[in-house]
Amino acid sequence: MEKFFSPRSIVVFGASATKMNLGQIVLLNNKQVGYEGNLYGVGSQQGDVNGIHIYTKVADLPETPDVAIFLTPAKTVPGLMRECGEKGITHVVIESGGFSEYSHGDHTLEYDVLAVAKKYNMKVIGPNCVGTVNFDMKMMMPFAFFKNIPTGGRLGLISQSGGVGGSYLRAVAGYGIKPGKFAATGNKLQIDEAHFLDYFIKDPKTDIIAMYLEGFKRGRDFFGLARQCDKPIVIQKSNRSPLSAKIAQSHTTALSSDDSVVDGAFRQAAIIRVDDELEFVNAIKVVRMPLMKGHRVAVLSRSGGHAVLTADACAKYGFNMVPFPPSFIEKLKTIYKTRVIAHQNPLDLGEIFDYTIFTEILEEALKLENYDGVLFNHLYSSL
Amino acid sequence: MEKFFSPRSIVVFGASATKMNLGQIVLLNNKQVGYEGNLYGVGSQQGDVNGIHIYTKVADLPETPDVAIFLTPAKTVPGLMRECGEKGITHVVIESGGFSEYSHGDHTLEYDVLAVAKKYNMKVIGPNCVGTVNFDMKMMMPFAFFKNIPTGGRLGLISQSGGVGGSYLRAVAGYGIKPGKFAATGNKLQIDEAHFLDYFIKDPKTDIIAMYLEGFKRGRDFFGLARQCDKPIVIQKSNRSPLSAKIAQSHTTALSSDDSVVDGAFRQAAIIRVDDELEFVNAIKVVRMPLMKGHRVAVLSRSGGHAVLTADACAKYGFNMVPFPPSFIEKLKTIYKTRVIAHQNPLDLGEIFDYTIFTEILEEALKLENYDGVLFNHLYSSL
Repeated sequence: MEKFFSPRSIVVFGASATKMNLGQIVLLNNKQVGYEGNLYGVGSQQGDVNGIHIYTKVADLPETPDVAIFLTPAKTVPGLMRECGEKGITHVVIESGGFSEYSHGDHTLEYDVLAVAKKYNMKVIGPNCVGTVNFDMKMMMPFAFFKNIPTGGRLGLISQSGGVGGSYLRAVAGYGIKPGKFAATGNKLQIDEAHFLDYFIKDPKTDIIAMYLEGFKRGRDFFGLARQCDKPIVIQKSNRSPLSAKIAQSHTTALSSDDSVVDGAFRQAAIIRVDDELEFVNAIKVVRMPLMKGHRVAVLSRSGGHAVLTADACAKYGFNMVPFPPSFIEKLKTIYKTRVIAHQNPLDLGEIFDYTIFTEILEEALKLENYDGVLFNHLYSSL
Repeated sequence: MEKFFSPRSIVVFGASATKMNLGQIVLLNNKQVGYEGNLYGVGSQQGDVNGIHIYTKVADLPETPDVAIFLTPAKTVPGLMRECGEKGITHVVIESGGFSEYSHGDHTLEYDVLAVAKKYNMKVIGPNCVGTVNFDMKMMMPFAFFKNIPTGGRLGLISQSGGVGGSYLRAVAGYGIKPGKFAATGNKLQIDEAHFLDYFIKDPKTDIIAMYLEGFKRGRDFFGLARQCDKPIVIQKSNRSPLSAKIAQSHTTALSSDDSVVDGAFRQAAIIRVDDELEFVNAIKVVRMPLMKGHRVAVLSRSGGHAVLTADACAKYGFNMVPFPPSFIEKLKTIYKTRVIAHQNPLDLGEIFDYTIFTEILEEALKLENYDGVLFNHLYSSL
């Protein structure tokens, strides 16, 4: 599996030297963001894409690449894989769609892919997926452009959908959470979410595992791994109803499962189940913080109205706003003076417009004993 | 009430000519955004703020302003109001805090305010509020700077909290919804949310009414008005628990009410109750759209994964994804060609990267008969 995440060289099938196509996008994207491994293309016409050579046959490549990526029509894949096998390529990512998800359950082409893989002892991701990303080495298989890639992220993200995976990558990044590695599973012909889960559990650079899934390939193995995993796992499992099942089948061949069974299994494995993008991002933000030992919170609030909203939320979720000790209130008075704001928990900072005072108060609040956490309810706005 | 929203002239008490204070901010803000009425300040020192004269006595003003705004310490307010009464000023906004919300229910100062108001037949907003905004005439009473104010909005927003009101104004604007008028109620000593509701119901420039409330002043009158109102009303009512009650009391003197009674009254008056900022904005977005006649939707989706998520949502909320008629599918084939995407409802547009095609398909979908709505599930991202 390591080769899929840290390949030293990649060949992209279906790359055009003359017109921009998905294969060319994969090559250009890696080149532009700074992937330092070797890049090759194979296409119908020989040529050059920004210094990357496009060959007409994989046999002509000067080395055996670690990974082959397919972006050619589905029916050409088994034959080209055979040529990869002859070249000694063992890791294959089939990004092309048009397999069983399209032909309504006709698995003929996929059986061909599996037969070739078996003959040459190949590992296969996909088909119908966007492959993997390793942000640390700026290696990215998806046919979308990425920019300003941060390194050092500790989040491993697995998605059964390239589209949802891409938008969730952007969503978490938009909230300041750096992803470390990403994998799209697609139809999961051979490698499935349990394989990726196993890899991320063992990966020393991954601290949090998050997934978007439409179905399980090997449910029992998956939950066995999850139950033994001591890294937090956040999952959005869609395809929850008969209405969705038909769509999911044609999307990634996902089979529907009884949603209450999924709920129960998640609870047993201590998996955090989330329902939408916002919950997905929030859960990832929360599990990155140290666990609170109890329910006592000191609340600092930007305004009186936000203090009321925070009190509502504390009541709803069982947090306890313990009154501030007199020593803290005396200390507050040395930090700022105000005529009207009550020095109580939650502390209304509405009259303060010098934001440096906020940090002073926050530092004092963090020193408080007999509190399990500080909730700082501030605002931001793009306008 | 009209004078509070469309004053031809305003005097701000507590404005400093020399140092930036809240009163000066109110004056500068109106000047900078383009309020065309007359502006005056009253402060302890005579002077000039960006062409606005600061007087030491309201009696010296060359005219009788439509509205007086108070940003002076609470204890000075009744005396200054008396001077306003002598000058003939009938509309007063008390932005200052430090009344009963601070002194834990001591209403002495507020009784004084009411006595002066009665003697001079004055209308009073506040105390402890940020006043009103009329975006169309670029008149704004809050002591915060606003920029790039759009006109022509049809949303009337009432907030019991200036802080929450301000952040919700920015939130709705951030989603492209233009507010028309805004009012903060504060302690509701005299004018309360029912007065503002009544005004917005009658205001021909207001189509949608939204509120953030912490308590009701005249519940029966309020719900009587709401039940007869044919404009949609969206309300976030906080202060839902005993834990919040103490905070709300010290914030805007709001009294707590039984939350299930509030729920029932909202249902009877067809008020849309929302729980947080996101629901607040979404409800306002939804009520601006024409009512659907039924539950049949045509779904266009950016990717297969988003199609599955949309199908989940349709199942959850009772929408029906009727299969597309053959004529629509034939039409689609003339608009775009793709090898693998199934032409079904929801329609997966994942392989299309030419976004002009999206509008063509959307136009065709809108022509479909036997559908009650089109749901276009697209993505956006700031990255």
